[in-house]
Amino acid sequence: MMYTIEELKALKQFYKNQLLHDTVPFWFPRSYDEENGGFLLMRDQDGSLIDDDKAVWIQGRATWLLATLYNTIEKREEWLKGAKLGYDFLMKHCFDQDGRMFFHVTRSGEPIRKRRYFFSETFAVIALAAYAKASGSKEAADYARTLFGSCLRYASGELQLPAKFMNTRPSKGIGVPMIMMNTAQQLRGIIGDERCDQAISNWISEIESDFVKDDIRCVMEQVTPDGRIIDHIDGRTLNPGHAIEGAWFILHEAKHRNNDPALIQLGCRMLDYMWERGWDKEQGGILYFSDVYGKPVQEYWQDMKFWWPQNEAIIATLLAYLMTGNEKYAQWHRMIHEYAYGHFHDRVHGEWFGYLHRDGRLAQTAKGNLFKGPFHLPRQEWYCYLLLDEYLRKTR
Amino acid sequence: MMYTIEELKALKQFYKNQLLHDTVPFWFPRSYDEENGGFLLMRDQDGSLIDDDKAVWIQGRATWLLATLYNTIEKREEWLKGAKLGYDFLMKHCFDQDGRMFFHVTRSGEPIRKRRYFFSETFAVIALAAYAKASGSKEAADYARTLFGSCLRYASGELQLPAKFMNTRPSKGIGVPMIMMNTAQQLRGIIGDERCDQAISNWISEIESDFVKDDIRCVMEQVTPDGRIIDHIDGRTLNPGHAIEGAWFILHEAKHRNNDPALIQLGCRMLDYMWERGWDKEQGGILYFSDVYGKPVQEYWQDMKFWWPQNEAIIATLLAYLMTGNEKYAQWHRMIHEYAYGHFHDRVHGEWFGYLHRDGRLAQTAKGNLFKGPFHLPRQEWYCYLLLDEYLRKTR
Repeated sequence: MMYTIEELKALKQFYKNQLLHDTVPFWFPRSYDEENGGFLLMRDQDGSLIDDDKAVWIQGRATWLLATLYNTIEKREEWLKGAKLGYDFLMKHCFDQDGRMFFHVTRSGEPIRKRRYFFSETFAVIALAAYAKASGSKEAADYARTLFGSCLRYASGELQLPAKFMNTRPSKGIGVPMIMMNTAQQLRGIIGDERCDQAISNWISEIESDFVKDDIRCVMEQVTPDGRIIDHIDGRTLNPGHAIEGAWFILHEAKHRNNDPALIQLGCRMLDYMWERGWDKEQGGILYFSDVYGKPVQEYWQDMKFWWPQNEAIIATLLAYLMTGNEKYAQWHRMIHEYAYGHFHDRVHGEWFGYLHRDGRLAQTAKGNLFKGPFHLPRQEWYCYLLLDEYLRKTR
Repeated sequence: MMYTIEELKALKQFYKNQLLHDTVPFWFPRSYDEENGGFLLMRDQDGSLIDDDKAVWIQGRATWLLATLYNTIEKREEWLKGAKLGYDFLMKHCFDQDGRMFFHVTRSGEPIRKRRYFFSETFAVIALAAYAKASGSKEAADYARTLFGSCLRYASGELQLPAKFMNTRPSKGIGVPMIMMNTAQQLRGIIGDERCDQAISNWISEIESDFVKDDIRCVMEQVTPDGRIIDHIDGRTLNPGHAIEGAWFILHEAKHRNNDPALIQLGCRMLDYMWERGWDKEQGGILYFSDVYGKPVQEYWQDMKFWWPQNEAIIATLLAYLMTGNEKYAQWHRMIHEYAYGHFHDRVHGEWFGYLHRDGRLAQTAKGNLFKGPFHLPRQEWYCYLLLDEYLRKTR
């Protein structure tokens, strides 16, 4: 069934309420580290701290969130103050002397681990851009653009990163074009950058020609550099939630480009293929990994339900519905919304649990750790709220 | 209840039958790669190949197993031939030019990945030693000793390996002293090496003083270099099956040293502590990870049942029972034996599944992959069979 305008209004209100009265208050202001800057985000279900270390990805994401709330929802001083804590910590403690960023640091900012890829950097780009807009800092804006330039050079291979694998069986992942596309979309949307449009077009072309396989209705997670399937365990492993995230980045780009029909069609194909492969027909929710040919995968949590693939599917189905009016997407959005808020939301302490077993039982209680923090859930609630708000304004 | 002699005889026969008529025939000879040497071990439940890549750890372990069967069970030419295939592949394809070994190679031996630790090397030491004894090759014996010498220098830090973490929060794992102890025990038992006794004593002292925490009845997986608990997520994470494996390595050493009472007591303490923390009182079997203080851990498969912790617990409880006569260990051995053979054994195609959910449901069907192969299960059946055989001879 299609959504009625009344239902869409209620959904808009629901996402806004959850964002501002449930999700964000779980994290802030209690996570502000007034002493060292940055945020203390590794928390158990009741908000108690399980570790005072800082994951650099999530320091950047939290900074982006707070500045973005300030930029787009309401000019609350508390949010700007939080964004500044994050910005200061990132700039002061999270860069190594070679210009690359760490992955994991102590509370006071001493480095624990640096990894061989540049995702700390991409999250810092959006953090810096959002903070620049919120604060008016020209320094932050300049550095966001400089760092985005480094990311462009890492992504193109012009700047080499240390290799994890030998060069026997070269491969590339969909992660790089996806995350770069979203980084560029954010940078362009927040402070503007003339490099973004062309680069986004190139990444979308790469995804379409190399990762999307229409003959088998699939979006690959990894392929050879020229886009062929690698028939080994790693190469066959699919990540439906990730591909669905890629689908909505492309739908978002279609919207930005005046509802470009080719991009709408591409985003919907990717969503269709990976909903078929990722939606758990028996128990509901999006499964974590599967094998393109149905063989066993290496990763042990393949049939668990993690929070973030549900967030991505909620955004993707809503966006697809509002852009196409196809009733199927309203149906899928209802299914994933009900499953996710029914199973992941913690009605006692707020926010979502991160990790459920396939049948929906809680696997563990952490709300924040090295990989989970205030990002996928608040981003989903923020994005869906603004999307519905815009849609309802236009159709009023 | 204590085991009767009749029950022990039946157990001995059971392990021998499983080893020779169920486990080993699942793998061999069909996994022999006559074309390239080595073994094709990444197999689904029915034995069909899911990947023709080769995991170097498991190439070494399979070589050790085949040579050890030849050395200790029966002089079957087929086993010696298999051991030679493994030996040739290890020597020809698995070493990098710097003398370190790869972790993952293609079927024909081209390197895919090299990791930052030396466990490929420790498994190669026992493979080479066992093959040296089986074949009489002096070259293999010499290289086993040379490579063990390199491992000693990696373990002591005299030879530096690339670091995964910065030096902000130094830590050490129980894995190095454990695996080195077992490597030295094998080397000493198979071809003899005068460095082993003293080194084993040192590793046992290190485990006892730095990793075993009597005040909280726990064996830590990681500590500071001077043996303190690191109160962060990683530092708090326990691996009961791994610690129970360490317990039986120490009980094995106690047996080698004329039933040294201090070592028996240490091995039993470690088993007691980690049985309490690892045995699933609700559903049976040994759980994968837990937190020393009951907080959430980072790893997502923490409450799954993997095959190998069950194998280690079967050995440890049987060894503890036969060495101490303590009825508790007979009871524990019955519990883990019944759980494991009841849930993991594949009655249709032979061998064990590797990965169950906490409640015993099958999580995925692979029998062999990058980490599972012909090692923990056949080693357990081989070790328990020989242990019971020796015990029954002595008490006849």
